[in-house]
Amino acid sequence: MQRHFEQELEALKTSLIKMGSLAEEAISLAIRSFLDQNVELARRVIDGDERINDLEIEIDNAILDLLALQQPVAIDLRLTIAAVKINNDLERIGDHAVNIAESTLAIAQTLAEEPLLDIPRQADLTKAMLRNALDGFILNDPGLAQKVLVADDEVDSLNRKIAHDVKEKIKSDASLLDGGIELIRVSRNLERVADLATNIAEDVIFVTDARVMKHRRWEK
Amino acid sequence: MQRHFEQELEALKTSLIKMGSLAEEAISLAIRSFLDQNVELARRVIDGDERINDLEIEIDNAILDLLALQQPVAIDLRLTIAAVKINNDLERIGDHAVNIAESTLAIAQTLAEEPLLDIPRQADLTKAMLRNALDGFILNDPGLAQKVLVADDEVDSLNRKIAHDVKEKIKSDASLLDGGIELIRVSRNLERVADLATNIAEDVIFVTDARVMKHRRWEK
Repeated sequence: MQRHFEQELEALKTSLIKMGSLAEEAISLAIRSFLDQNVELARRVIDGDERINDLEIEIDNAILDLLALQQPVAIDLRLTIAAVKINNDLERIGDHAVNIAESTLAIAQTLAEEPLLDIPRQADLTKAMLRNALDGFILNDPGLAQKVLVADDEVDSLNRKIAHDVKEKIKSDASLLDGGIELIRVSRNLERVADLATNIAEDVIFVTDARVMKHRRWEK
Repeated sequence: MQRHFEQELEALKTSLIKMGSLAEEAISLAIRSFLDQNVELARRVIDGDERINDLEIEIDNAILDLLALQQPVAIDLRLTIAAVKINNDLERIGDHAVNIAESTLAIAQTLAEEPLLDIPRQADLTKAMLRNALDGFILNDPGLAQKVLVADDEVDSLNRKIAHDVKEKIKSDASLLDGGIELIRVSRNLERVADLATNIAEDVIFVTDARVMKHRRWEK
């Protein structure tokens, strides 16, 4: 029974890692579609979201089965509950990728040449946060998760800066209005992805801290 | 043991209902602060968010205890897992209330008199969705939850209409830029709250449908 349980927990982790890869890929492609004004890539992101949504339901069902049949306790229970949340967060990251892809389609219809401002930098930071959060989960590394928490402030302040800069640009050139509003939208979606990466990092710390505490209790 | 378990499950439901009231009140106050340009009310929403965040952690801990000590199965397990998600969604609704309150503060600094466009209507719809989702949870009523799913499309299309109308207004009067961008921001936050109310409604259906299925099995 114990061996069977560990296999199921490993299978759950593997599915979540798969879900993480899909969400990460969706965000990367969505950002690339926006920066390169690549409409085809944007459509691929939008079409790919269904697969992420389906996998979320599959993972939720696997978690329910695992809880019902194996009744995990202590650290395994914390990991399972963290999995519910991380799964949910990854699905939402997929939704934000779709929003960014939709901005690509919208901006393709504007006539003005938009300046990208700090969007590439904010995108790089956000992608690094998501990567560290997922690696923190895969490697059980609270240090990587801690890095994510620190980076969140910078993404937030870039978001404010981009909104400010866009408004200045529009004031000096009214033709930038439609595209500028999409720029603000993309920046806010990146900020939300960074928030969700932060949530995932907090869940990783929640699980690994318990492990640390458990170890300490053993040492006593 | 069984009686004790039922008491704990009832206590968990009561805490979630409390969390729901706090989130609902935060959104209502935030909307009112924005519509009435009431800076003091906006500050109250921002200050009140800590209480919502604290309650989220309390509820998560209660869920962990319940799962560890009582090991619920079937419908009770589904309710407990739905509680993890609903708790998370309500905390995020609190965050969106803060965002709207921040827009109140930002717009108070703009010089132009902003037209509110369809914001009051979108706000009413969103509040009704949240109310129905929470009532659906409290009353175990999938019919109320179903109403929420139907209303989501209208909130989404109002969001698109508001973004479009704001842009038209700015084109005819550039002084509306700063406030108009806050209007779009508030509208998107309302859309996100409506999405979260939809998530809660789906979780209510997920729990109650299982109950229906269980009943059918009994009838056979």
